[in-house]
Amino acid sequence: MKHAYAVIMAGGSGERFWPLSTRSRPKQFISLFGGKPLLSLAVERLEGLFPSDHIYIITADRLVAASVAAASAVPPENIIGEPCRRDTAAAVAVACGVVRRRDPDGVVCILTADQLMTDAAAFRQTLADSVAVAAAHDAIVTIGIQPTYPATGFGYIELGETLEAGTVTGFTAAKRFVEKPDAATAAGYLASGKYLWNAGMFIWRTAVMLEAFRAYAPDLAVLCDRIIGTDSSASLRTCLAEQYPGLRAISIDYAVMEHVQNILTARGVFGWDDVGSWPALGKHFPADASGNVVVGSCERMEASDNIVVSENHLTALIGVKDLIVVHTDRATLICPRDRAQDVKRLLRAIAERPDGETYV
Amino acid sequence: MKHAYAVIMAGGSGERFWPLSTRSRPKQFISLFGGKPLLSLAVERLEGLFPSDHIYIITADRLVAASVAAASAVPPENIIGEPCRRDTAAAVAVACGVVRRRDPDGVVCILTADQLMTDAAAFRQTLADSVAVAAAHDAIVTIGIQPTYPATGFGYIELGETLEAGTVTGFTAAKRFVEKPDAATAAGYLASGKYLWNAGMFIWRTAVMLEAFRAYAPDLAVLCDRIIGTDSSASLRTCLAEQYPGLRAISIDYAVMEHVQNILTARGVFGWDDVGSWPALGKHFPADASGNVVVGSCERMEASDNIVVSENHLTALIGVKDLIVVHTDRATLICPRDRAQDVKRLLRAIAERPDGETYV
Repeated sequence: MKHAYAVIMAGGSGERFWPLSTRSRPKQFISLFGGKPLLSLAVERLEGLFPSDHIYIITADRLVAASVAAASAVPPENIIGEPCRRDTAAAVAVACGVVRRRDPDGVVCILTADQLMTDAAAFRQTLADSVAVAAAHDAIVTIGIQPTYPATGFGYIELGETLEAGTVTGFTAAKRFVEKPDAATAAGYLASGKYLWNAGMFIWRTAVMLEAFRAYAPDLAVLCDRIIGTDSSASLRTCLAEQYPGLRAISIDYAVMEHVQNILTARGVFGWDDVGSWPALGKHFPADASGNVVVGSCERMEASDNIVVSENHLTALIGVKDLIVVHTDRATLICPRDRAQDVKRLLRAIAERPDGETYV
Repeated sequence: MKHAYAVIMAGGSGERFWPLSTRSRPKQFISLFGGKPLLSLAVERLEGLFPSDHIYIITADRLVAASVAAASAVPPENIIGEPCRRDTAAAVAVACGVVRRRDPDGVVCILTADQLMTDAAAFRQTLADSVAVAAAHDAIVTIGIQPTYPATGFGYIELGETLEAGTVTGFTAAKRFVEKPDAATAAGYLASGKYLWNAGMFIWRTAVMLEAFRAYAPDLAVLCDRIIGTDSSASLRTCLAEQYPGLRAISIDYAVMEHVQNILTARGVFGWDDVGSWPALGKHFPADASGNVVVGSCERMEASDNIVVSENHLTALIGVKDLIVVHTDRATLICPRDRAQDVKRLLRAIAERPDGETYV
C-alpha cells in the first residue's frame, strides 16, 4: 500500500436531508449515525490501511473549514477546496493531479464521504485487494455493490466474464456502466445476478487515469497537467481558481467510465448503504412497536410508521401515519414518506422566498 | 357606572393551545389576535366604561407578573393571585369580597380574559345596560351569547318569559342553566331560539352575591367575609393563602347559578368567540387558496386545509392535508384537525416524561 492514496469526494448540496442538511452543512456533516458526521466515519474506516497523510478530501471551498473539523485525522493541507461545482469528473482529475504531483507511481482510490458501511473490515479488505490489482494492471478497478433490492436510484455496472482463476482472482471484467433503470429493468438486473450497484468507488494508477482523460476528456487531462505543475498549496489554489470556471460540469461516469474498456470490478459486500434520503432512516434505526423511527424527543399518541428527527426539541404527534417530520432550529419539514423525493422541488420554492437563503 | 367594577377571571391551564400556550403562558397571554395577548384585549375593550382602578384581574399567583405586563392599564394592586386552583366559584367569591370591602354598593361584572369580541362597542353597551339592571334589581344579570351553530362545547342558558316592556326592557328571565349538550340536543336548542350560550359573564351587586353564597355555598360566603375584613394587599394575600387550600374546587355554575331563581339575561350580539382550540383559528384568519390557515412562515407544496402556526421558524409542508402544525421554540405539535381535543390527553403523557415539565 506504499503508493496508495485515498481521495474522498465530499461535495454535496445538502438537499436530500433538508432541513438537517443544508448547503452549508451537506449530508457528510450530519451526525445521525453513531453520533459522528458521515465524513468522520469515512475517514475512520480507512484507519490502518492508509497513513493519514495519504488521505485527501476534495470538497467545496466553503466547506473546507467544516471538513477540517470533521476529519481531524487528515492533514489540513490534504483537504482541497473546489472554487465552484463542476461535478465529479473535475474532482477526480484534481485527485489524479495532486497524487501524481507527489508520487508518479501513485494509486488513487476515489471514495465517497456520505455512505455507510457496516462492515469496515470487509471494506478495507476489498479496498486493499483493489489497490493490489490496480497497481499491477493497466485497468480501472471499481468496487460494485452487491444489490439487495431492485433500486432505481443507482446506476449499475453490468458484469462481463469472470476472469480466469490465477489472473485476477475475485474480480470480474465490467461490460458496461448503465444509468439509473426503471423499476422493471431494475428487477431484471437484480434477478440476473449480473449487475452491481455503481457506488462511485474507483481505484486506478495515475498513469491509467491520465491516459483515460487524454482519450475521452482532454480538457481534464490539461487540468491534471496544470495541477502536476504546481508546487504548493497556494499555487494549487491559484490553479484551481483559474481553471475551474471554464470546466464542463460532467460526472466521471459520463466523462470516462462509459467509454473505457479496461474496467475490473470487485464485488463489494460490506453492508454498504448510501442513506439516500429520509425514508432510508428506517433501515438504520429500530422502530417502536407502532413502526415509528425516532431520533431525538418525540411523544406519540396513536401515531404509526412515522420517521421523526427532533433533536433538542419535543415533537408531539397525535394520530398521524407515514409522515416524515424533521425539526431543526431553523426549519421543520413535514411530508408523507412517499413524497420525500419532492424535497428538492420544495427547496427550489423555498430558495425563492425573500428570506429563502436563511433556510436552504 | 360609579359603583361598577369589572373583574376579569384570568386563570387557565394553557392546554388547548399547547404548545403555544403552556402552564406558565395560558391562552390569555398568547398574541395570535391583533398581535396582542387576549388579556390585553379584554382590558382594552373596557376602556371608557370603567376607570382603570375599577378593573380587577384574578389570576394564579404564578401568573401575576405576566398579567401585570399584559394589562398595563390596570393598577398592579388590582391584580390578585390565587395561591392554588379552586375553579371559578372561589374566584367569584374573591371578586365579591374585594369589591365589597371597597364599596358596599359595588356592582361586580365577572368577565373573562380569553375570549374575542369583534364588536367592542356593542359589548360595552350590553355591559352598561346590564350594570344598570343589576344595580336596580335583586337579580343576577348574565350576558348570554346568541348561538351561531349547535355548539356542544358550551353550557347553555334556557330562557323563560321575556320581561314586560317597561320593567326591564331587553332582558329575559333565565329559566335554568344547562350543561354542555350532545349534538342532537344542541341542534334542538339552536332551532328553538330559546337558548343562549353561557359565556361566564355575570353582573350583580355584592349584596346579591353574598346572599347567593350564604344560601348555596356558605363556605364561600365565609371566604367573602374574611376578605372584607382585610385592609391591605398584604393581608388579602395572607387571607387567601390561609383560606384557599381548604376550599372545594367547584364552578360558579354548579355552586350558585344552577340553584338561584333571580337571573336576568341579556342577549349578547357582539361577535363573541371563545376561540376554544386550534381548529377555531380557521374562523379568525383568512385561508389561502388551498384552505391553509397560516400564522408565521410556512412553505406549502400541494398541502391543503392545514392550520399552521410557526413564528420565527419556517415550517415546510409537502402533500399533507387537514393537519394542525404548531411550532414553538420548545415543542412542535402535529395532529389532524379532528383530533385537537386529544391535546389534553397528550399533555398528560408529556407531563410524565422525565423532562415533561419543560414542555407543558
